[in-house]
Amino acid sequence: MKKIGILTSGGDCSGMNSAIRSAVRTALTMKVEMVGFRKGFLGLIKGDSLVMDTRAVSGILQRGGTFLQSARCDEFKVADGQQKALAKLKELGVEGLVVIGGDGSLNGALALDRLGFPVIGIPASIDNDIAFTDMALGVDTALNNIIYAVDCIKDTASSHARAFVIEVMGRNSGYLASVSAIASGAEYAIVPEIEYDLTDVCSQLRRRFEEGRDNAIIIVAEGAGHAQAIADSIKDAIGFETRVTVLGHYQRGGAPSVFDRLLGSRFGKRAVELLLEGEKGKMVGLSCHALVATPLAEVTVTPKRLDDDMLRMAEMLGI
Amino acid sequence: MKKIGILTSGGDCSGMNSAIRSAVRTALTMKVEMVGFRKGFLGLIKGDSLVMDTRAVSGILQRGGTFLQSARCDEFKVADGQQKALAKLKELGVEGLVVIGGDGSLNGALALDRLGFPVIGIPASIDNDIAFTDMALGVDTALNNIIYAVDCIKDTASSHARAFVIEVMGRNSGYLASVSAIASGAEYAIVPEIEYDLTDVCSQLRRRFEEGRDNAIIIVAEGAGHAQAIADSIKDAIGFETRVTVLGHYQRGGAPSVFDRLLGSRFGKRAVELLLEGEKGKMVGLSCHALVATPLAEVTVTPKRLDDDMLRMAEMLGI
Amino acid sequence: MKKIGILTSGGDCSGMNSAIRSAVRTALTMKVEMVGFRKGFLGLIKGDSLVMDTRAVSGILQRGGTFLQSARCDEFKVADGQQKALAKLKELGVEGLVVIGGDGSLNGALALDRLGFPVIGIPASIDNDIAFTDMALGVDTALNNIIYAVDCIKDTASSHARAFVIEVMGRNSGYLASVSAIASGAEYAIVPEIEYDLTDVCSQLRRRFEEGRDNAIIIVAEGAGHAQAIADSIKDAIGFETRVTVLGHYQRGGAPSVFDRLLGSRFGKRAVELLLEGEKGKMVGLSCHALVATPLAEVTVTPKRLDDDMLRMAEMLGI
Amino acid sequence: MKKIGILTSGGDCSGMNSAIRSAVRTALTMKVEMVGFRKGFLGLIKGDSLVMDTRAVSGILQRGGTFLQSARCDEFKVADGQQKALAKLKELGVEGLVVIGGDGSLNGALALDRLGFPVIGIPASIDNDIAFTDMALGVDTALNNIIYAVDCIKDTASSHARAFVIEVMGRNSGYLASVSAIASGAEYAIVPEIEYDLTDVCSQLRRRFEEGRDNAIIIVAEGAGHAQAIADSIKDAIGFETRVTVLGHYQRGGAPSVFDRLLGSRFGKRAVELLLEGEKGKMVGLSCHALVATPLAEVTVTPKRLDDDMLRMAEMLGI
Repeated sequence: MKKIGILTSGGDCSGMNSAIRSAVRTALTMKVEMVGFRKGFLGLIKGDSLVMDTRAVSGILQRGGTFLQSARCDEFKVADGQQKALAKLKELGVEGLVVIGGDGSLNGALALDRLGFPVIGIPASIDNDIAFTDMALGVDTALNNIIYAVDCIKDTASSHARAFVIEVMGRNSGYLASVSAIASGAEYAIVPEIEYDLTDVCSQLRRRFEEGRDNAIIIVAEGAGHAQAIADSIKDAIGFETRVTVLGHYQRGGAPSVFDRLLGSRFGKRAVELLLEGEKGKMVGLSCHALVATPLAEVTVTPKRLDDDMLRMAEMLGI
Repeated sequence: MKKIGILTSGGDCSGMNSAIRSAVRTALTMKVEMVGFRKGFLGLIKGDSLVMDTRAVSGILQRGGTFLQSARCDEFKVADGQQKALAKLKELGVEGLVVIGGDGSLNGALALDRLGFPVIGIPASIDNDIAFTDMALGVDTALNNIIYAVDCIKDTASSHARAFVIEVMGRNSGYLASVSAIASGAEYAIVPEIEYDLTDVCSQLRRRFEEGRDNAIIIVAEGAGHAQAIADSIKDAIGFETRVTVLGHYQRGGAPSVFDRLLGSRFGKRAVELLLEGEKGKMVGLSCHALVATPLAEVTVTPKRLDDDMLRMAEMLGI
Repeated sequence: MKKIGILTSGGDCSGMNSAIRSAVRTALTMKVEMVGFRKGFLGLIKGDSLVMDTRAVSGILQRGGTFLQSARCDEFKVADGQQKALAKLKELGVEGLVVIGGDGSLNGALALDRLGFPVIGIPASIDNDIAFTDMALGVDTALNNIIYAVDCIKDTASSHARAFVIEVMGRNSGYLASVSAIASGAEYAIVPEIEYDLTDVCSQLRRRFEEGRDNAIIIVAEGAGHAQAIADSIKDAIGFETRVTVLGHYQRGGAPSVFDRLLGSRFGKRAVELLLEGEKGKMVGLSCHALVATPLAEVTVTPKRLDDDMLRMAEMLGI
Repeated sequence: MKKIGILTSGGDCSGMNSAIRSAVRTALTMKVEMVGFRKGFLGLIKGDSLVMDTRAVSGILQRGGTFLQSARCDEFKVADGQQKALAKLKELGVEGLVVIGGDGSLNGALALDRLGFPVIGIPASIDNDIAFTDMALGVDTALNNIIYAVDCIKDTASSHARAFVIEVMGRNSGYLASVSAIASGAEYAIVPEIEYDLTDVCSQLRRRFEEGRDNAIIIVAEGAGHAQAIADSIKDAIGFETRVTVLGHYQRGGAPSVFDRLLGSRFGKRAVELLLEGEKGKMVGLSCHALVATPLAEVTVTPKRLDDDMLRMAEMLGI
């Protein structure tokens, strides 16, 4: 393999740049050329590429987001677009591809694999909703961003004797919500994986208030309910001023944490090594500090489960 | 004067604790006793007080919010409640009061002044909407919080070629919006002080996009329009994916910046000195690095104007 | 078991408060009393204790250091002091003890175990030099502190075309140095585990400079050599202005990262559970996301090894 | 004036990039070309320049240091080097120059002014030691960096009942030391402007310890004494474990604070405006929120005085 391509796709996250930098430096060390495609599969189809030398990846390690950019690409979801991408890869002499992204991106990678093109995926998704890796890129940075904001809001909550309902990301995953609840000392985490009874939540909060506690933080995953509706119920139940904050896209970005820089560096290096070892159609993942490779076909059909212990602990440490 | 009271009222902000600490240490140095009232005027009416010695204010300098807590108090807005507060102050032997807060709190301070009780106010409001002080407590910390979040969101905006409409605090004041727009390199600031034409904003953004710029940040003060409506217009006008983030209460809290710690320390010290010098019914303010005292009667009726230069610069540095 | 004691000993680190809080809340949930000893084994010998209820651990989760304080205690290193501690534990009706700290502290815990007293240890040491746990408490926060400082210094290094030698903690362990080198994109990590040839380092740096790179960051573990001497050699070899920064105690503290809050919460909970399950003389540790318990007798005689892969990657990603 | 040059010189600081960006955008708005010189006067002599268009200054606002780089340049200190620079400016068609830097850099700017070349200086020095401006660029960011580190170290100081001597920058100026002492609640600030009696410092610390306070932070400006010697004296006097931390170059860099981004933006804009208005040989400075221009000949011979009030307050709030 003489030339490898790399792209980032789907929602951006901190650590993508670390993975790109590491992949490039690994390839260069092994005398392999590297090209980057801008805006994910869209740039791949268009052949919007740039040469990735040491200079191209200089100074990006500490930056959030992805300097290769990302974009939606409906065209790549159908066979025709995939063929175009394949043709472009061949035209450019690219013999293998590293795809960094979440669920949808890994499905895209799988499509290329099925066309016989060597692809290795790197899981990147702040929701931590990708199976076969303990952690996806960007999760740790997102968590630390969330906690910074929740710590700030706690200052106001305790200054004013108020309840706050804070919505964090996680359409199908309560990982961010449950971990940030534990890490911030929140009173409650509401997650999509577990049915909750709002009446029950309210009665627990009411009991706490009767015991003298005069403020509360409830963290809700975006997929688990409507934050404002939850706040209204709480207010009705306990007669307590309750405010909502939706953390939104602030969670995604910023200088990556050490964990994400290290994880990105490891993922990027391993992805290139796997391609050079002749592997393909796999996703590199973290399993007990070791890196493992799992077929994309398996990754994309397996849901990631939330650790029950985590939820039990969140409950115990909260209310 | 042998005993001085202190309270925080209205929306909390970073730096309130610095002001409390400094007021207490100044009083103690001058052999004056200090009592704190919890939850603002509510605690004052109830006589919910604590002795403020060195230990009480130890370790609070670097904390956001106010450890004396704050609360709404409708009772204090009428004559009867004010008389109760006055009676409680006399009962406790308190001869002067320091009130830390925003507009409403300074009006409360003025009410006590009109009843003949010596009060000195300290302006604290992240909106920077209080006249006769260049900066209110909490503004600088709020700005730095905002910028941290906007920097994060810019990572995503530039990774995805998107527009973001970010709503910051400021019901009647565009200070936070205009300064944070300059400091973050945003493309546009929409503020309540200045009428804006959304068609105009959109056409400027469209021109920029046509020139090749593929992302944009628009910062909107909460009092200047509905963020989602603005985002929808932009999307319609430029056909560009546009997202909204409402920063909310995250802006208020967190460890105070150096500026707010210093300002709080200066305000707290000066407020106590003024009371001991026999001054009353005034607010301490910052004017060109010096501290000045302005009658509360004047402060509470004077609107604070936004610096036009700032807005012109925001415009020049943006679009 | 009706009453459990807890103390922190040795060098403080971020996350100790999370562990204390979680241990206390776990015990209270199980209707077990908890007492804290101030200043580690010193307070234990003196019986300097406080009741640990919910209020005692309120608001400590996000604070660095340890609110129970820590101290050296030579008296506890000898049999006489250990007997005094034992007597005090019995006098107070304490039936089990949680000891949070590093190598020396775990040795202290082992001493009590050998006297037949039930003890569970929690590894806390920013050096990450404790065997039988993937990570010790405080490491992740220290790493993020280091990276924040190194990112700052890189701004100056690249602005001035200079080399910087940055000394980080780690008397016998190169963990902080090697991970922070990878995460900051440093050119070199010098660690105590691996012999290095300064001539070799210098010739590699010289080659890089000849290739056009005009600044460099070299991270040195404190146990691996004298930072100033290394800087002098580099300056002599490459004729390049070279500065030294010793990060020092700044590395230890500050608000704990999410990882350390979560790890502390898990360690604290598990330590109390182990005592209540009748376990003793063990240290709780992290192994592949699971919590394991290892005899203190084994922990204290086993050196922790640095991951070779990490060092190889540091080298590849650097020079 | 059709073409303006810009360079950064001397020690780098946060906010330089904001000033560059603003100067460039202001010039472009006024249809004036802009060129940047790399590595200060060194690049000026060599003609190492780049075209400064919108793209060149994109994404630099939030970066520490200076992307134009800085360097020492002995050659420019003598007449011959200055003539070379002048010749190069004429050769490139540059008609005016903006010089961003500290004392030495402003002297360099003055030298060009004396040769009849239009120059405007912008004060940038984290020491805040430049007269005729209330604040220099970089000071506010440096202070916030210092406070972040001191807050961390306080966690350890209070966890261990220790004294810490922390050395901050400031060869001739105690500004950083005194302000950071107030803002961090330090016990003592030792500054070059004021003679101090170490015996006196120690006896005050001893009295505090006897009153029950078991930790202390002493902040020393680098020009005011040797931190280790001070620590040794304190240890001898009070028998207290005392550690030293030298914050070093960490203070200079990192993402600029809002204040520095705003100040840089204002300075950069005004510098270009002044040149276009026909002004020369002046430094733009901040005076009571307004921008003023002072002859460089005056700036470079006037020492900046430390505010006495600040020191008195530092003392009152400390011991």
